[in-house]
Amino acid sequence: MTHERTPRQIKFGAILTGTGGPGDQLRWLDPEIPGDASVDIDWYIEYARLAEEAKFDLVFIVDSQFITPHSPPHYLNRLEPLTLLSALAVSTSRIGLVGTATTSYNSPYNLARRFASLDLISRGRAGWNVVTSGDAGTAGNYSRDEHFDYPTRYRRAAEHIEVSQGLWDSYEDDAFPRDRETKVFLDPAKLHELNHDGEFFQVVGPLNIQRSPQGQPVIFQAGDSNDGRDLGGRYADGIFTFTPSIADGQAFAADIRSRAAAVGRNPDHVLILPGARIVVGDTDDDAREIERAQHELSNSFEITLAELGRPFGWHDFSGYDLDAPFPDVLHLAEHSFRTQAEAIVAAARKDDLTLRQVVERRAALHPSPFVGSAKTVADTIQEWFEAGAFDGLNVFVSHPAQFRRFVAEVIPILQERGLHRSEYEGTTLREHLGLPFPANRYTVSATRVEQTANAASLSTAH
Amino acid sequence: MTHERTPRQIKFGAILTGTGGPGDQLRWLDPEIPGDASVDIDWYIEYARLAEEAKFDLVFIVDSQFITPHSPPHYLNRLEPLTLLSALAVSTSRIGLVGTATTSYNSPYNLARRFASLDLISRGRAGWNVVTSGDAGTAGNYSRDEHFDYPTRYRRAAEHIEVSQGLWDSYEDDAFPRDRETKVFLDPAKLHELNHDGEFFQVVGPLNIQRSPQGQPVIFQAGDSNDGRDLGGRYADGIFTFTPSIADGQAFAADIRSRAAAVGRNPDHVLILPGARIVVGDTDDDAREIERAQHELSNSFEITLAELGRPFGWHDFSGYDLDAPFPDVLHLAEHSFRTQAEAIVAAARKDDLTLRQVVERRAALHPSPFVGSAKTVADTIQEWFEAGAFDGLNVFVSHPAQFRRFVAEVIPILQERGLHRSEYEGTTLREHLGLPFPANRYTVSATRVEQTANAASLSTAH
Repeated sequence: MTHERTPRQIKFGAILTGTGGPGDQLRWLDPEIPGDASVDIDWYIEYARLAEEAKFDLVFIVDSQFITPHSPPHYLNRLEPLTLLSALAVSTSRIGLVGTATTSYNSPYNLARRFASLDLISRGRAGWNVVTSGDAGTAGNYSRDEHFDYPTRYRRAAEHIEVSQGLWDSYEDDAFPRDRETKVFLDPAKLHELNHDGEFFQVVGPLNIQRSPQGQPVIFQAGDSNDGRDLGGRYADGIFTFTPSIADGQAFAADIRSRAAAVGRNPDHVLILPGARIVVGDTDDDAREIERAQHELSNSFEITLAELGRPFGWHDFSGYDLDAPFPDVLHLAEHSFRTQAEAIVAAARKDDLTLRQVVERRAALHPSPFVGSAKTVADTIQEWFEAGAFDGLNVFVSHPAQFRRFVAEVIPILQERGLHRSEYEGTTLREHLGLPFPANRYTVSATRVEQTANAASLSTAH
Repeated sequence: MTHERTPRQIKFGAILTGTGGPGDQLRWLDPEIPGDASVDIDWYIEYARLAEEAKFDLVFIVDSQFITPHSPPHYLNRLEPLTLLSALAVSTSRIGLVGTATTSYNSPYNLARRFASLDLISRGRAGWNVVTSGDAGTAGNYSRDEHFDYPTRYRRAAEHIEVSQGLWDSYEDDAFPRDRETKVFLDPAKLHELNHDGEFFQVVGPLNIQRSPQGQPVIFQAGDSNDGRDLGGRYADGIFTFTPSIADGQAFAADIRSRAAAVGRNPDHVLILPGARIVVGDTDDDAREIERAQHELSNSFEITLAELGRPFGWHDFSGYDLDAPFPDVLHLAEHSFRTQAEAIVAAARKDDLTLRQVVERRAALHPSPFVGSAKTVADTIQEWFEAGAFDGLNVFVSHPAQFRRFVAEVIPILQERGLHRSEYEGTTLREHLGLPFPANRYTVSATRVEQTANAASLSTAH
């Protein structure tokens, strides 16, 4: 099964994290970044507007819901993503607004309603990055003794998405005549109960909110494990991942697209947008020097040691003998980020590493492929994109000066080459991403009934 | 126990409902109101800004989460309150932002986090109107066979508030040194777990967000039953109610304040803000004529019959014999708005009413006390306020022209009389309402420890 890829442009997301992100926990040491950026709405508005001026497709907000006094800065203090994005919705006019929310600790009715509200407030620009929560400690904040195990989390996520998408179709698009002459506000035949009765959720519906100009919020997915990929292939419009090389990107894209095709979807309707650290300098050497200086500022053995604990349920490694072999802790990852934990343990076993060596390897500078002069960065992005390593990039906006350089120097080159839009063509996130408008399932059914009737009458005519 | 009332001004809230509200379901027939006002963020922004120009204390968003195809317009299609208020937060700068959220179908960690985010985004202007959900059908949207019964709902509400307030204090106000010299972001001694283990919730904490400039969101409460009043007296800073007469208002205020005093609170720190329908005309007669014309436009036997079903679990009365005695349906209110239902049944029994008569009485024009020329309305508000019938009014913004007249004609009179502010004195909702800043419980404890130590050393000195 082959699919003609239509001529495309590169999609761009801006990951707004405030005071730094994973692997970049000391970014707040830079005097250019307000120490409270992660809870400062003005910081988010400023960079969302800058991304919009650069005609980005979307901003992207990550999330987590479990901290300890030893959590790195990025996790400690942050705005809840949908509240944050709603403020951005009325501070921007075109850019998409993608927020992370967990299916493990939300009710579908509540969450679907909040995304539908964001979608209406933004006039069709909302996206939901579906996660299942890898921090096992989150359970303790939600009256549960234990976090859901891995397969349960993904079954629950799938059902959660199904219920949400069902609720989002509660009203057909022409459900409200609002006819002042006849005094008819609603056509009750176009309001539908869901009556979902599943393994995790029983939801009668209907949802008390109409659809937005893009029909339904766009679905993103961010888990890289096998079940995560299945979930992405089945439901996601966009995938957030990490792509260390062109070959990795090609393999990942092929894998996701084959999973999408296997469930009958058009694989071109799944866009892959890995996260990217981009550094622009006057020359390639200058850029590598900036990258090195940034790494030096943000490098910390202690924080890397603390972050290493995350895939193992935020396990505290600080009491271990640093020079003993990497400890036998894989069982701690059971309900956490198991795929990540397995990769860490496998690498340690393979090279017979101590805990110190594991931390030092993680803390070392891992050069980004997207570092160089503006032209070099543009060339590299173009090369990877044209090789099919990704459909676009989710750019980490951790360093304001660097983001401004990317927008001012690299984006114009890509625009000149026809690889990035110079103006928004549409108004909705779905339009930006080139995704089809999802017809309401109940309206679709009516059309299908018609088609079936036509087919029947055709066969009668023979 | 008597309490000196400090000289006060009248507090004003604006209830923004979009297309009308309870008892005013056909308001959307007015061509001045967009038919989709209840999901149009621009409508909300316009009236929030108008209320802010008039130096109102707050806007107030009501809510519900259960509809059927026969629900009146007001319930059918609405934005989720916190998403809505976050958009208003960055569209205004001073006015308070109070949103309704149910304790029956939210997790405290999620909800506390969302209100804390709104509080930070608005720089200290968030308020939570605590409700327990009277629509029994809501259970079906949240995977429950049955709605919580009345006493359970209120026990759960109390615990939900306690947990939320505990989570909101997770960080002491000086928890983040964010010292670039020493690279210290957090003082871990100032981050506190809650470790709540109660009847309904087990929440370890801490919450992953700092406190706002007002310390914690303001608590409102809107249930008028006995348990609702207890909850309000114990926890609420503001009470949303209905006050048909000065005497009723005085009795209600005395009741709430005695409940507050009984649990050791300063009764002056509970403000009573009934909802008010205000109609301003050129003369008193003109205003009564506007009120009559408004009622005529919005009056509907069918919709009143449908709304009558709400306290009885949205019972469908349409199949009943309208001219038979009011049916025996009180048992249907078991898990719904029982107090309201009891009042309806008692009135019907007392006067031996048929179902038609009950509906006709409800549908009839109930003149508002706040109808007249601007001077008359100002006089009446002043009289009720000075008699202690309320601390302020929550004004229904159902008719835009009327709200504009109130703001343009009545507010200046009250300002001239010193009964309403001409400028905001503070920046937070708590400051607007004259409520004290809530010290962080852990910082308070430290102070208490100090005081105890001082007391001990004093007694040693004796």
